[in-house]
Amino acid sequence: MSRQIRIVVDAMGGDNAPDVTVRGAVEALKVSEKIAIILTGRTNDIQKELEKYTYDKERIRIVHAEDVIGFDEPPVMAIRKKKDSSIVVGMNLVKRGEADAFVSAGSTGAILVGGQFVVGRIKGIERAPLAPLIPTAKGASLLIDCGANVDARASHLVQFARMGSIYMEHVAGVKNPRVAIVNIGAEEEKGNILVKETYPLLKECTDINFVGSIEARDIPKGNADVIVCEAFVGNVILKLYEGLASTLLKEVKKGLMSTLRSKIGALLIKPALKKTMKEFMGADQGGAPLLGLNGLVVKAHGSSSSEDIKQAIIQCIQFNEEEINEKIKENLTTE
Amino acid sequence: MSRQIRIVVDAMGGDNAPDVTVRGAVEALKVSEKIAIILTGRTNDIQKELEKYTYDKERIRIVHAEDVIGFDEPPVMAIRKKKDSSIVVGMNLVKRGEADAFVSAGSTGAILVGGQFVVGRIKGIERAPLAPLIPTAKGASLLIDCGANVDARASHLVQFARMGSIYMEHVAGVKNPRVAIVNIGAEEEKGNILVKETYPLLKECTDINFVGSIEARDIPKGNADVIVCEAFVGNVILKLYEGLASTLLKEVKKGLMSTLRSKIGALLIKPALKKTMKEFMGADQGGAPLLGLNGLVVKAHGSSSSEDIKQAIIQCIQFNEEEINEKIKENLTTE
Repeated sequence: MSRQIRIVVDAMGGDNAPDVTVRGAVEALKVSEKIAIILTGRTNDIQKELEKYTYDKERIRIVHAEDVIGFDEPPVMAIRKKKDSSIVVGMNLVKRGEADAFVSAGSTGAILVGGQFVVGRIKGIERAPLAPLIPTAKGASLLIDCGANVDARASHLVQFARMGSIYMEHVAGVKNPRVAIVNIGAEEEKGNILVKETYPLLKECTDINFVGSIEARDIPKGNADVIVCEAFVGNVILKLYEGLASTLLKEVKKGLMSTLRSKIGALLIKPALKKTMKEFMGADQGGAPLLGLNGLVVKAHGSSSSEDIKQAIIQCIQFNEEEINEKIKENLTTE
Repeated sequence: MSRQIRIVVDAMGGDNAPDVTVRGAVEALKVSEKIAIILTGRTNDIQKELEKYTYDKERIRIVHAEDVIGFDEPPVMAIRKKKDSSIVVGMNLVKRGEADAFVSAGSTGAILVGGQFVVGRIKGIERAPLAPLIPTAKGASLLIDCGANVDARASHLVQFARMGSIYMEHVAGVKNPRVAIVNIGAEEEKGNILVKETYPLLKECTDINFVGSIEARDIPKGNADVIVCEAFVGNVILKLYEGLASTLLKEVKKGLMSTLRSKIGALLIKPALKKTMKEFMGADQGGAPLLGLNGLVVKAHGSSSSEDIKQAIIQCIQFNEEEINEKIKENLTTE
């Protein structure tokens, strides 16, 4: 058997911690023999949850952390002050090489800051982008960057494109992934200063399959596998996706309650509609990787279910086995 | 009776010109006695369409323009070279004071360039933003700017906020419209350089109801009436709106065809679903104004129906009667 993959799970992170985080961890153990899990957080709380399940006690252990970082705390301050929080303690395990990956459904800001300052970037990587998968008509595309570091430079975007391409090829299994840059028109001369500067650099990259610009209207169609953009724009795309899908669904539901005929129809379509929405919106695989770090950090939704946490953990196996960080080092940092 | 409002309609603009443009113009005449219409384009083609209808011949006339600017022509070159195009001829009528407004479903790029260089900006206005209405759960919000001039400065965004506020209050009839700036978090210290610079300036404006930042996920909820952003971001929001709504609807339809039960349900809900989608996506009132110009320019969708063209024309009445340009001059250019 190959070496064990050691994954830290922030037991205290997310709206429904620690019950869903612990359950997700226990369920992930059953999926693969290869993983061992370290739960960070308050030992008593975690122990109480663990007692509900039967599991391989050799493969799960607790590392105590007294503090929890809340969703409303200023991230930089929280990471600096709360050394004994489940996030900082967990990230330090990765930093010291005692674990390979860290999964958390806690504060996005704190995870991004902690990723950069506790785990640290791979030497030569200028920025660590947050890269969620977003649903499309053809499956899912990687939206890179959606992090907190806005006002990126062209060189950052080029690294995002190359890291995103490696991730999609080796973790998501998309052969020769199509890389596109978000733009306001299809032509090369279109765009803002940043895009105009980045476009020719991406064209020169021989290690990616650059297909040019993508307009926002074509993103949901799945016209590219890796969608490169600056974090402000990425954040707008990601959040508008969520917001618009949710509003549209609410409007449709409201509309269906308007007549007796449509009410009956609504009952009949309910299972199919639910399935479609779940398939479409559920393409995010439980968590978004923060790429380019010395180790893997995965950010799961604050509202994650135990299934989401499980998926986020499983994602780390592929990342580790495919040696993504080694590939990033080889391809991006040896120039 | 008050003075006639003279509206130029680009008879040749759009996917279905000149039949829908001419029909839209004739239908608009019936809605209001106040308007007179000038159709620009090829006289013979227009005449042939006009012959299909009965209308008040005193209130509609043709100004011949031999050329048409296509959707795929580089805008700056097209406006410069095609002096005898329906767009340039029509805009010159507005520039010379022979008409009050110009409506076109033609090339967005050409309309934006022509607006700036043929019609010209109001003195003191730094940029003319394109401001479409986008649908929300509460009705519609003005998204300003979605034009072609990216990389805006803070002072531009402040003018957009103030012009947008005047438009929403006096044309859309929203009392004391809530103005928000698109951001990646709700807090004042969040954002990119541009947003951080603009935010305090908006806070200082005493003539608008600035409510702070809006995250993209809250735009479809209708949490603000005027959504201020730089044109690159506005373009992404506008096009993602279109693209995501269309993809989601397609996925839902496909899902409904998956079982016999849902197929029957689909038949029953069809009218209600269609009505909902029409109500939700049809909030754009036919056209988007290009604000801050010496006259009004309205950009209608390339795929406009005659009803859309009619709505775009009617929109010009309110704009003219409420003396929006005078209000912009008074409020924005006397400092």
